[in-house]
Amino acid sequence: MRAIVFDGALRFEPNRTDAKPGDEDCLVRVHLAGICATDLHIIQGYMSFTGVLGHEMVGRVVSGPPEWRDRRVVCEISCVCRECEMCLAGLANHCRKRTVLGIDGRDGCFADLVAVPKRNLQVLPDVISDEEAVFVEPLAAAYQVVAQCAIDGRTNACVLGPGRLGLLVAQVLASTGCRLTVIGRNPKKLLLCEKKGIQAIHIDELVPRQDRDVVVECTGSPEGLNTAMQLVRPRGTIVLKSTCAKPGSLNLAPIVIHEVNLLGSRCGPFPEAINALARQAVDVRSLISRTFPIDQALEAFEAAQNPDNVKILLKINPR
Amino acid sequence: MRAIVFDGALRFEPNRTDAKPGDEDCLVRVHLAGICATDLHIIQGYMSFTGVLGHEMVGRVVSGPPEWRDRRVVCEISCVCRECEMCLAGLANHCRKRTVLGIDGRDGCFADLVAVPKRNLQVLPDVISDEEAVFVEPLAAAYQVVAQCAIDGRTNACVLGPGRLGLLVAQVLASTGCRLTVIGRNPKKLLLCEKKGIQAIHIDELVPRQDRDVVVECTGSPEGLNTAMQLVRPRGTIVLKSTCAKPGSLNLAPIVIHEVNLLGSRCGPFPEAINALARQAVDVRSLISRTFPIDQALEAFEAAQNPDNVKILLKINPR
Repeated sequence: MRAIVFDGALRFEPNRTDAKPGDEDCLVRVHLAGICATDLHIIQGYMSFTGVLGHEMVGRVVSGPPEWRDRRVVCEISCVCRECEMCLAGLANHCRKRTVLGIDGRDGCFADLVAVPKRNLQVLPDVISDEEAVFVEPLAAAYQVVAQCAIDGRTNACVLGPGRLGLLVAQVLASTGCRLTVIGRNPKKLLLCEKKGIQAIHIDELVPRQDRDVVVECTGSPEGLNTAMQLVRPRGTIVLKSTCAKPGSLNLAPIVIHEVNLLGSRCGPFPEAINALARQAVDVRSLISRTFPIDQALEAFEAAQNPDNVKILLKINPR
Repeated sequence: MRAIVFDGALRFEPNRTDAKPGDEDCLVRVHLAGICATDLHIIQGYMSFTGVLGHEMVGRVVSGPPEWRDRRVVCEISCVCRECEMCLAGLANHCRKRTVLGIDGRDGCFADLVAVPKRNLQVLPDVISDEEAVFVEPLAAAYQVVAQCAIDGRTNACVLGPGRLGLLVAQVLASTGCRLTVIGRNPKKLLLCEKKGIQAIHIDELVPRQDRDVVVECTGSPEGLNTAMQLVRPRGTIVLKSTCAKPGSLNLAPIVIHEVNLLGSRCGPFPEAINALARQAVDVRSLISRTFPIDQALEAFEAAQNPDNVKILLKINPR
């Protein structure tokens, strides 16, 4: 099979051995996959991952139990044991023995075929296109913000960093009716927000007043948290979505002095994301900057690093 | 009046102009005062404070409204406007215009006399001695942990750093019946915990298993948070009590990956602290390492920096 592999260097492998499903797995033929900030951090050394990259995808089951065969699916990324104390406590996403698709101990989906536990799969309704479905995983991560943190019409919220994830988080927050501002650097992305009716402010024009109830940090840089601390009100919440490859110099005194709640937030609920796409409650199509064929892996990753682009997709197989 | 002043250097001033109370203030003659980690950070430049140091004290009102005169009192440290949106929202401790006794914009209590808003005062019952009452402010800060964070018999909790504040937090947590460990470096302080029936572990013997529901970080050093991230379970809570004078290099990826709740925590409720001392629910006397007269300011601060000592008090006037 064809695959995009990282083993210290990023490369396209035209003839990698086919993914082999275990007893509890399905084999999925990947249609479309998305490049995420985590992929960009991984090729900088994050998680010390080696193998097939990729964790955002849509595809069709080609082998596995009969009830799954030929189903068009998306796939939750954490593969869990269901036996450890985290799994038994209902926190399976934090399974002690988990592997994570293309991130930790398990080959990912930037390949013709990917083997995934059947229990990780979710069937897609026809109304959702492949181009939309490939956003289910990051959109679920955006819904995790409202799952962890009460946000309603009274909330004065702000999203820092209108990138791939930030633009999804912004749309999810906007759907709650909260007062929302997006703060960023790139004029193109700020314009994207405004087109969606979301107030956008360039960071250079920002006057931090420590008046936001909730700040969602999606910049992917250590400086983002420093800005968030200037924006959040005393006793407010900063939701931290960014994992940075490199540690930054941080003075957390404002967290203590203003008794801020800093909340780490990772993967989220697939059903909410699927429902939102089916209802067309969130627009993801306008976030697609370019789609590359799988054999143009290096070009695709380069495009994903260009701050003018939002989402870069990999076209792997036809639907 | 005599006072301990910081203006870039720490010094004892034998003839400073007497503190002058405003219209809403009482003048308090200070009996006993405590040196806190914040005082040690301030003389390293934290908060850019200059003036009379000190915010932990017990004394007697010598002038002010008749109903306050001659009362033996402790004093909340944040002096607030009662008009800004924080005050009106019930978050007066986070008043936008606040001054803070000996920390921010207002002279403190390491002096014969201190002027404080009458509404900041709380009368002490006779059953609490001066030596106990001087612990009300830091003990209230310890109670803030249980005010912010649900802790009960099922909670697997841990306190990092059995110093001045950590030993108070540990006793408050122990009183909830939770499973508790204190982790530290100094054998004397670990022994103090064990004498109180609290399990204590030397940090070199620690095997971090990411299994604590709640970790209270009281070390006062940036490394403390790194240790806390190794101890807290996924979706657990780190309560951050330490303000560090210098920023540290931090990788907050574990906060995101394990969806940890990092909760800043500052001042706390005086009534709980006063009640606990009246009931003798918390032992503070054994934490007093030495008491210095006010004119031995430099010696007292030096002793407060010695990791073998817990609490250093300043004797200013007789009861």
